[in-house]
Amino acid sequence: MKDRNILTGEDYIESLRRRKLKVFLMGEQVEEPVDHPMIRPSINAMAETYNLAQKEPDVATEISPFTGERVNRFLHIATSSEEVVMQNKMQRRLGQLTGTCFQRCVGMDALNALYSVTYEIDAQHHTYYHARLKDFIQQMQQHNYIIGGAMTDVKGDRSKSPSAQADPDMYLHVSKRSAEGVYIRGAKAHQTGCINSHWLIVMPTLRLQSDEADYAIVGALPVEAEGITYVIGRQSCDTRSLEGEIDAGNAEFSGQEVLIIFQDAFIPNNLIFMNGETEFTALLVERFTAFHRRSYVCKSGVGDVLIGAAATIAEYNGVEKASHIRDKLVEMTHLNETIFATGIASSFQSHATPSGAYLCDELLANVCKQQVTRITYEMARLAQDLAGGLLVTLPSEADYRSAEIGPVLKKYLKGRDDVPTENRMRILRLIENLTLGRNAVGYLTESLHGAGSPQAQRIQIQRQMQLDIKQQLAKKLAGIVEDDS
Amino acid sequence: MKDRNILTGEDYIESLRRRKLKVFLMGEQVEEPVDHPMIRPSINAMAETYNLAQKEPDVATEISPFTGERVNRFLHIATSSEEVVMQNKMQRRLGQLTGTCFQRCVGMDALNALYSVTYEIDAQHHTYYHARLKDFIQQMQQHNYIIGGAMTDVKGDRSKSPSAQADPDMYLHVSKRSAEGVYIRGAKAHQTGCINSHWLIVMPTLRLQSDEADYAIVGALPVEAEGITYVIGRQSCDTRSLEGEIDAGNAEFSGQEVLIIFQDAFIPNNLIFMNGETEFTALLVERFTAFHRRSYVCKSGVGDVLIGAAATIAEYNGVEKASHIRDKLVEMTHLNETIFATGIASSFQSHATPSGAYLCDELLANVCKQQVTRITYEMARLAQDLAGGLLVTLPSEADYRSAEIGPVLKKYLKGRDDVPTENRMRILRLIENLTLGRNAVGYLTESLHGAGSPQAQRIQIQRQMQLDIKQQLAKKLAGIVEDDS
Amino acid sequence: MKDRNILTGEDYIESLRRRKLKVFLMGEQVEEPVDHPMIRPSINAMAETYNLAQKEPDVATEISPFTGERVNRFLHIATSSEEVVMQNKMQRRLGQLTGTCFQRCVGMDALNALYSVTYEIDAQHHTYYHARLKDFIQQMQQHNYIIGGAMTDVKGDRSKSPSAQADPDMYLHVSKRSAEGVYIRGAKAHQTGCINSHWLIVMPTLRLQSDEADYAIVGALPVEAEGITYVIGRQSCDTRSLEGEIDAGNAEFSGQEVLIIFQDAFIPNNLIFMNGETEFTALLVERFTAFHRRSYVCKSGVGDVLIGAAATIAEYNGVEKASHIRDKLVEMTHLNETIFATGIASSFQSHATPSGAYLCDELLANVCKQQVTRITYEMARLAQDLAGGLLVTLPSEADYRSAEIGPVLKKYLKGRDDVPTENRMRILRLIENLTLGRNAVGYLTESLHGAGSPQAQRIQIQRQMQLDIKQQLAKKLAGIVEDDS
Amino acid sequence: MKDRNILTGEDYIESLRRRKLKVFLMGEQVEEPVDHPMIRPSINAMAETYNLAQKEPDVATEISPFTGERVNRFLHIATSSEEVVMQNKMQRRLGQLTGTCFQRCVGMDALNALYSVTYEIDAQHHTYYHARLKDFIQQMQQHNYIIGGAMTDVKGDRSKSPSAQADPDMYLHVSKRSAEGVYIRGAKAHQTGCINSHWLIVMPTLRLQSDEADYAIVGALPVEAEGITYVIGRQSCDTRSLEGEIDAGNAEFSGQEVLIIFQDAFIPNNLIFMNGETEFTALLVERFTAFHRRSYVCKSGVGDVLIGAAATIAEYNGVEKASHIRDKLVEMTHLNETIFATGIASSFQSHATPSGAYLCDELLANVCKQQVTRITYEMARLAQDLAGGLLVTLPSEADYRSAEIGPVLKKYLKGRDDVPTENRMRILRLIENLTLGRNAVGYLTESLHGAGSPQAQRIQIQRQMQLDIKQQLAKKLAGIVEDDS
Repeated sequence: MKDRNILTGEDYIESLRRRKLKVFLMGEQVEEPVDHPMIRPSINAMAETYNLAQKEPDVATEISPFTGERVNRFLHIATSSEEVVMQNKMQRRLGQLTGTCFQRCVGMDALNALYSVTYEIDAQHHTYYHARLKDFIQQMQQHNYIIGGAMTDVKGDRSKSPSAQADPDMYLHVSKRSAEGVYIRGAKAHQTGCINSHWLIVMPTLRLQSDEADYAIVGALPVEAEGITYVIGRQSCDTRSLEGEIDAGNAEFSGQEVLIIFQDAFIPNNLIFMNGETEFTALLVERFTAFHRRSYVCKSGVGDVLIGAAATIAEYNGVEKASHIRDKLVEMTHLNETIFATGIASSFQSHATPSGAYLCDELLANVCKQQVTRITYEMARLAQDLAGGLLVTLPSEADYRSAEIGPVLKKYLKGRDDVPTENRMRILRLIENLTLGRNAVGYLTESLHGAGSPQAQRIQIQRQMQLDIKQQLAKKLAGIVEDDS
Repeated sequence: MKDRNILTGEDYIESLRRRKLKVFLMGEQVEEPVDHPMIRPSINAMAETYNLAQKEPDVATEISPFTGERVNRFLHIATSSEEVVMQNKMQRRLGQLTGTCFQRCVGMDALNALYSVTYEIDAQHHTYYHARLKDFIQQMQQHNYIIGGAMTDVKGDRSKSPSAQADPDMYLHVSKRSAEGVYIRGAKAHQTGCINSHWLIVMPTLRLQSDEADYAIVGALPVEAEGITYVIGRQSCDTRSLEGEIDAGNAEFSGQEVLIIFQDAFIPNNLIFMNGETEFTALLVERFTAFHRRSYVCKSGVGDVLIGAAATIAEYNGVEKASHIRDKLVEMTHLNETIFATGIASSFQSHATPSGAYLCDELLANVCKQQVTRITYEMARLAQDLAGGLLVTLPSEADYRSAEIGPVLKKYLKGRDDVPTENRMRILRLIENLTLGRNAVGYLTESLHGAGSPQAQRIQIQRQMQLDIKQQLAKKLAGIVEDDS
Repeated sequence: MKDRNILTGEDYIESLRRRKLKVFLMGEQVEEPVDHPMIRPSINAMAETYNLAQKEPDVATEISPFTGERVNRFLHIATSSEEVVMQNKMQRRLGQLTGTCFQRCVGMDALNALYSVTYEIDAQHHTYYHARLKDFIQQMQQHNYIIGGAMTDVKGDRSKSPSAQADPDMYLHVSKRSAEGVYIRGAKAHQTGCINSHWLIVMPTLRLQSDEADYAIVGALPVEAEGITYVIGRQSCDTRSLEGEIDAGNAEFSGQEVLIIFQDAFIPNNLIFMNGETEFTALLVERFTAFHRRSYVCKSGVGDVLIGAAATIAEYNGVEKASHIRDKLVEMTHLNETIFATGIASSFQSHATPSGAYLCDELLANVCKQQVTRITYEMARLAQDLAGGLLVTLPSEADYRSAEIGPVLKKYLKGRDDVPTENRMRILRLIENLTLGRNAVGYLTESLHGAGSPQAQRIQIQRQMQLDIKQQLAKKLAGIVEDDS
Repeated sequence: MKDRNILTGEDYIESLRRRKLKVFLMGEQVEEPVDHPMIRPSINAMAETYNLAQKEPDVATEISPFTGERVNRFLHIATSSEEVVMQNKMQRRLGQLTGTCFQRCVGMDALNALYSVTYEIDAQHHTYYHARLKDFIQQMQQHNYIIGGAMTDVKGDRSKSPSAQADPDMYLHVSKRSAEGVYIRGAKAHQTGCINSHWLIVMPTLRLQSDEADYAIVGALPVEAEGITYVIGRQSCDTRSLEGEIDAGNAEFSGQEVLIIFQDAFIPNNLIFMNGETEFTALLVERFTAFHRRSYVCKSGVGDVLIGAAATIAEYNGVEKASHIRDKLVEMTHLNETIFATGIASSFQSHATPSGAYLCDELLANVCKQQVTRITYEMARLAQDLAGGLLVTLPSEADYRSAEIGPVLKKYLKGRDDVPTENRMRILRLIENLTLGRNAVGYLTESLHGAGSPQAQRIQIQRQMQLDIKQQLAKKLAGIVEDDS
């Protein structure tokens, strides 16, 4: 990778070319991902993070205290509640513009979490991780690179800890050490947008025991580093991107989920940010997931698109004035704003860490994510309700374009007189895309499992629910006096 | 169509060949649907209705009072509560065996509804519809044919009645009349399994006004009749059937939804079962939808498959003993049995119509369907929760089969040691199939809109909720005495 | 107690007098419960079980195979699915007529469960419990007595088994044995309607270990037996029965919950139906709770009253035509009928036990009860929504009757012009009664915990959900072949 | 009322004496409300707003820009987002301390809304309302008085506007005018804590038409003004305050709801803040309800008490380690924090009005309130689930204190060995108090209807959901281009 300063979405797309990545998709190695029609929509979505910074700099950039320059907000360390809230507002906006996962949050959340954690490791261990990380961030800011945060290991048998697995590679670990750095082996699953990134930061996925030091490794590698293989996961309806435009629903944008395999890939010392300090792994995971769970506010932006699509199909069908239709749109709005509100409440309730970086409220971050795991599904159900059955029985674009059958479809699939049949098809396909198709992956299932499955949030809520204080409140009002004897 | 007596699923599949239907799919006319890999799974599902009659005759057949012979239950007119309940038990069983929509219920429900309605038309108008229908049913029973019931018109602008549409063809109607019969024009949308059927019965889709007599037409046509064109609707992930086996999730079975266009197709007099009696259209629609809404009990059979798949992936992941996992399986079971219970309650509460045919309880039928529109979505969410994120990030079968990357995937996508990676992939793909993929169409969206959208059920519930009786109960207990003066 | 044949509600009330029970309420011993204004409404509710048998014998009576005479259905052993369903229909009717718990189901469910369990104990142990029970039932039928089933022990520390409690009396047990019978000690909590009964049947509340034989005692005692003390539990707003009529909401009817303390009360041998056969305790509890959980169908009758009251207040407020009002009434109906449908589905799916008595479907019985624990609360919320805030800010009947302030209230609390203010007050008080007041106890909290708390149903659902069969269905469709080796 | 400066809760209570109010309760005029055992708990709750200002001045006071002194936050006009958020934090704290409605929010929200609305009226009409209001606020701050905001009219027939009612007094209006001021007539229902206040501000309850100028009156009156009568509404279990201590559940604190009747009460000119400007009534109602709907964050404080009580009873029963118990506490916390988060998000998203006063985000305020109307009921259900059936079958305190039956109860109602029976009773009574009893009025029903019923929130959400913007987002992604022609 040649160093470059990326400004626009176009610059960014150009920057991804000719990297000679080892990428597999549908059983074959992909020559140039940028030009692959199934991959490209996910690159387009990422490019919007650059375009927005150009068009709405208040939303998507911030002055970096490190460089004194205006940098993309995804690369900025937030040092006030307002800045943490602004992350959410940017996320909602990008959700609105792309209708999918724009893939750049993991890196932002990883940098922000690592910033405070490395500071605290150094304070205890007299290590130099924090300074290294600051250098790295500064460099990323200068070039405006994208960072993918690689946390989730493949995990093998979930009932066993990393060191108890039959195959030690089920969790990423140091496989070899040299004076210059470490070599790592293992695999990270569900890696969002990683082949659209410039750098990866690997991080452990759970609290480690003191005898699992080889698993306690955090470090950065360029995406094109040797020893890394990428296998792109399938998404519902992904091959429609090969077909035409309408049936894809949202032809321009999509998410991306990849399995990354590290086969003795190398991390030099100056890019290592944790190395064996197992007692800090839980803290890192907790801070990262706190940031990341509240980042699901982006789904309120996608939700705005879904509400808009549902309102449009109701109009096209000629039923937009029915009270039950209006009421369902109100319910969708109510639910969608609940995601937004719980997210920004968590961000607004941020507090400073010793490093100066701000950390969002962890309890509310978990509440936000837990809401997302329920609300998006209910939104999808309501949108499908408003769409009508044609959502899943609509003939293909090819039929519509066919000289033979096309005119017949144009006649019979018409809704309201003044609405072209094609528009009705397009909006139905967008709803299909968001609730059953390619972007349902991000809007639904990934909303469920990303940043931790629902039960993970419940465990964190349990840890932070302060029952003792609440029990004292209740006992006082009930007139209960307890002996201390 | 040569007359034949169909016994087995194989007989049935053979019976569909060489019919020279005019069928479009993906912009092209299909030579022989039976051999088309995207269509065949839907035919396989229908074939199970024959196979079950062979294997479990108590469940899927009944003695016909017309022929004295044992006939397929889908062609039988139920004349007792027990027989109406048995329809539900057969439906659940077929849902379990196919994991999808087996497409034969519409015909059963149409015959049963028409049986009583034609009787009542004849009583009032001195027509001969009932006798004709009995002849038709007897013939169907002899040959063991499949009947598709074609009700839902394309409807155009929903805010306008059939006769007020700009284009009169938005609702199917008689376009020409002759001494021998009638010619019909229009289109029926969302037609389940129609090209897998032998006969179609067209029926009006809503209550008609007295000046809309041309729309009040009920009659039977062979599927291969002249003047009929079929356009097969797209389903999420439908083209995976062209790829391999694993990624399809359920490679053997699927549903089928088709748009049927009638361009002056002919119905001879002896196959006309209503012709202009507009005041009976509401009754027909209500009886048909009552039967059909309760037929959604089939989704509890599909739900059994989904519960089984969710339990299996939990086991494969090694987490099946966690209390929250077990609790989610309990919740799925609770919800799934609620569908079953409300359906068979409606069937058990059947009452005799003047014709002798039994009609299920309409209020409970609507309650059953309304539950289905909510429960299946919640089931899907819970199943995705249990599946884990790999559900939507899993690489393709082609990658898994690839010599180059396959062995790496086999290593890293392993769950519990004693479970082959391929099995884990297969069960994940089945859950994807049911919640995002091809059979999510039937399990979710079609569960929402089939037999009427949720609001349609609410309107029926409102009509039958007998507020006056309940208000009297309340007033009595409240000590309210009302003047009659 | 003089033996008598009770026919009417009046006979019944008379039969309760002069029994010299030891009953405590509000810190004082009650001279004659029948005449106590806080107790009487619960007796009135029970009396309706007699009145209904007079007015609607098809619903509330059956021909007894033991006596050949028509007996109250509450005393009948059901020997067909239809008879089990009829129990539910009677229960809904009585819920409609009383708007509360009419308290006679526990006895019916206990007799029906014991009938089959004693048969099976005898078959294994060559005991004579079944014959004794038949004699007892015959006697009860002749006199038309009410039986209270006393199951729930006070339990002490829930984390300990009966024999591990610090105080052995936390579970009822045999304290002394003689040639003539046994003496029992302990306490039964939440005893519905017991002082309105003629007889009590004590039963163990959970599965016992083989060394807990003294706790495995089932037997009958007259309510006025020596050694029994009753303490009546408080209910929300219970003292309003002392005040006037309107504020009580439902002045005529209420439930009753009592703590019974047995201090060496005696059961003669001929009234003992289990005595130490610990391995049958689980079976007894399961069968009793199966019957009893499905008996909560009564709440759909109470729900009818609540729907009626909600519709009435909407009318009185002049808002009954608003679409959101109508929609909430539809939702209430949908939910209420779901209770009914799941209950009768369980009853309809009954099967014969070796004794000839029918047992309802246990899985669906648990599904029914689980629905009740959620639906009644949602119904209450919707009813309060329709009622408006006046529900909880309404001045007292005394204010309304006051010469000074009454006329002002009459003016200002008027809703629609043609509705007397008093009627508006009355219907609001009825809704308060059912959702916050005295009958909220039965409609809500007791619906939650009676016949086992929600978790108890989940445990039973888990036991009966047959995951293995469902997993086989899923694996087959997913194409998974498992080695048997 | 002698002018006084109130500091402590005790000062406050003293300040309420000897006001010779005309108050009715249970059919009788109350001599001195302060000493009435049914009224006093509501005064105690209000007193906590003073006590908190003493103990936690950061939370409950602010420096007034008018007086330069530290004043109670309830009397402060918020001029920054942070101050609006601090209102919510104070509200949660007071909910925690009292477990009920502390009744002072209406006044705070009314002052804050009027501050900006009077400014805008003056700007348009060249009136002097704003200056008058500032004088009034300054005076209130000096004396630290409590203001009750009286908005909700009794409304008569809801389907008719104020001027269309048969009786013109169904909405409060000017009955007479003089040079010195106006006389008002009508009645305000559901008036929270009004007889515990020093001043009342009357405001119209809905958007008025231009010919309804007499109804467009806003002004202040002392609570003891001539021509005002108060009738205290009944609350579930209110008379338990007359009995003892335990059965009340929360013996110290309660809410208060009153019907106020104005019979030509006088407002002098300098206390009139709107007088006929009908076109500003909608704005006033919207701003007030925006503030007030978000004020329901107080319920998260009451929710903390309920969670604490539920956790305590689980512990007392010995079941606190069961996974389903822990999970229900997690769910309660999740829901409770959703209320808090949506409220503070609305407050944080405040913006400045032309007057300089800040106004919370209206859309999110409505979302917050809508959540409250659902969440509190689900919390109550979960708390009752955790409490067990004894919640509604527990004998009275009098029985427990009785020499005869008390010791028996002490023995049999014991839970875990180391927990006194009385403590178990107390915590159960607190849960009853909050879910069925006196404080269920505030926690449930008043949460539903206060600041507008659920449908009122939905109407506001509909007004603010900006469908057009969302439709544009969707159309762009769907590739829909619309002609402007």
